[in-house]
Amino acid sequence: MGDSPASGADTVAAIGEFGLIRRVTENMPQPSTTLLGPGDDAAVVAAPDGRVVATTDALVEGVHFRLDWSTPVQVGRKAVAVNLADIAAMGAVPTSIVVALACPSDTPTAVVTELLEGVTAEAGRVHAGVVGGDMVRADHIMISITALGDLGGRPPVTRSGARPGDVVAVCGRLGWASAGLAVLSRGFRSPVSVVNAQRCPDPPYAAGPAAALAGATAMIDVSDGLLADLGHLAECSGVGIDVQSDRLTVPERLVDVGAALGADPMHWVLTGGEDHALAATFRSLSDLPEGWYPIGSVGASESGVTVDGVPYDREAGWRHWS
Amino acid sequence: MGDSPASGADTVAAIGEFGLIRRVTENMPQPSTTLLGPGDDAAVVAAPDGRVVATTDALVEGVHFRLDWSTPVQVGRKAVAVNLADIAAMGAVPTSIVVALACPSDTPTAVVTELLEGVTAEAGRVHAGVVGGDMVRADHIMISITALGDLGGRPPVTRSGARPGDVVAVCGRLGWASAGLAVLSRGFRSPVSVVNAQRCPDPPYAAGPAAALAGATAMIDVSDGLLADLGHLAECSGVGIDVQSDRLTVPERLVDVGAALGADPMHWVLTGGEDHALAATFRSLSDLPEGWYPIGSVGASESGVTVDGVPYDREAGWRHWS
Repeated sequence: MGDSPASGADTVAAIGEFGLIRRVTENMPQPSTTLLGPGDDAAVVAAPDGRVVATTDALVEGVHFRLDWSTPVQVGRKAVAVNLADIAAMGAVPTSIVVALACPSDTPTAVVTELLEGVTAEAGRVHAGVVGGDMVRADHIMISITALGDLGGRPPVTRSGARPGDVVAVCGRLGWASAGLAVLSRGFRSPVSVVNAQRCPDPPYAAGPAAALAGATAMIDVSDGLLADLGHLAECSGVGIDVQSDRLTVPERLVDVGAALGADPMHWVLTGGEDHALAATFRSLSDLPEGWYPIGSVGASESGVTVDGVPYDREAGWRHWS
Repeated sequence: MGDSPASGADTVAAIGEFGLIRRVTENMPQPSTTLLGPGDDAAVVAAPDGRVVATTDALVEGVHFRLDWSTPVQVGRKAVAVNLADIAAMGAVPTSIVVALACPSDTPTAVVTELLEGVTAEAGRVHAGVVGGDMVRADHIMISITALGDLGGRPPVTRSGARPGDVVAVCGRLGWASAGLAVLSRGFRSPVSVVNAQRCPDPPYAAGPAAALAGATAMIDVSDGLLADLGHLAECSGVGIDVQSDRLTVPERLVDVGAALGADPMHWVLTGGEDHALAATFRSLSDLPEGWYPIGSVGASESGVTVDGVPYDREAGWRHWS
């Protein structure tokens, strides 16, 4: 990024929509699933299964990210990651994404190209093509992504298949992004490991299809917080879920951050969103694929989610528009 | 909509994301292509062709629409229509859409439900399911849509297949939305036919697959203006295109509006965007399906687009960020 971000010499207004799209899409590698990439009215993507999995999630500047906290690359990666995690949570493998990007006219071209560099990098981690997009003018940066995926002949793993007696398990990090947010909110920039977790999640994409193959009965990605998202799963399945807190090891790094900030790190683990771990239910402990660990069990009652048998008494998870 | 739009009693902040999603999605009809609709991490849509066509386009309040000019229902319809036209321009049939909606916390719930009513209505015109979405907070309303479609075994009709000797043809309205914008910009609200064309286009969705079946060699939807979009087609195909102006009948209504405003209605026809007509090339006149009419021819030179053999000398089409 240059020294004079809004000087007009290299802003999105100066280069224009078509010039920017050309700059961004030329030399962009495409996987074999991309049958027709960017540059036409629409893209064509392979859907070998005969079904396509689709999800959309948007990030807004000042609401979901701040460019004084995150680099444009990190924001682009995060915007893709939250979508790919949803594809994984159905047990599907991502095939492609499309990107709608809104930004002010005086946005430096470099911010846009770096955002899209992040988009391309994160999609590339799972060999998903960036197959299309739209660029529009707005007062703030907003990046809206739709991800598509393929089920490989398997049924989708929904939120509604959990049954009493099932084991509840998790794969991926819990509480890290929330700890990172607490650090950033107080004006600190370290420890980098938790701060970077807030800037960009690292969802265990491959664990979704692996869980589906292993017979997961229900699955969800942890975007709002473990208890909140298990609540969605419990509600959709018409069951209760009890989490055993002694199964949830609080990572040493989060213990340290909690001590430094005077906060309870277990609260981050139980209610922190934005890490996009996967939570799923399995018929038995022996079904759990590598990387998954048990954290609780499914009960018959529709009593929602409890921790060690009792309701958790602190506000659980992230509420939008609050 | 109530009398006190920002009173807080029935705003998106008060009802919350999950309440709003529940209110919008319950009782929403789904076509048979929707294998798993809203309410899970992602949707599952039939892709019988083994390929899926995907496109995304976003509308921003104050840039692409104004709520003092259009009703929320019209904005919702327009946001879908611009995407469905892109699917049609590939020769595909729309199957589904996902919607990311950003709005301020104090947006009346009714505005959101009416927007989504428009979204559902326009998607319903082509039996496409509204299969998923996201709602986020932002300073202005932005609606970002991704549409998916099915090619029914046909090759996609790209922008790059036009060959010298082909006939250039159009299906749908030209210049109406531009005339409507001129009327609205001067503070008028009639004639309603042109004003409504600006508020919400009426693309000839079925004409896209019909053109593909009839052997169209290239196709594009007219979103930026006839000359501008034929320019994209000519560039991608490496050909020149000449438009015969006497083939473009200016509708009487546009003649009247032009006379009233002191504007040249042919300029609207040649350069006005947002009607989302379809423009395509065919091997011969006899290939044109019902509703398509010839407007010019493809030449060998890469001289871009001419009108009656000469370059058109007024600024052609809509430029973003200008």
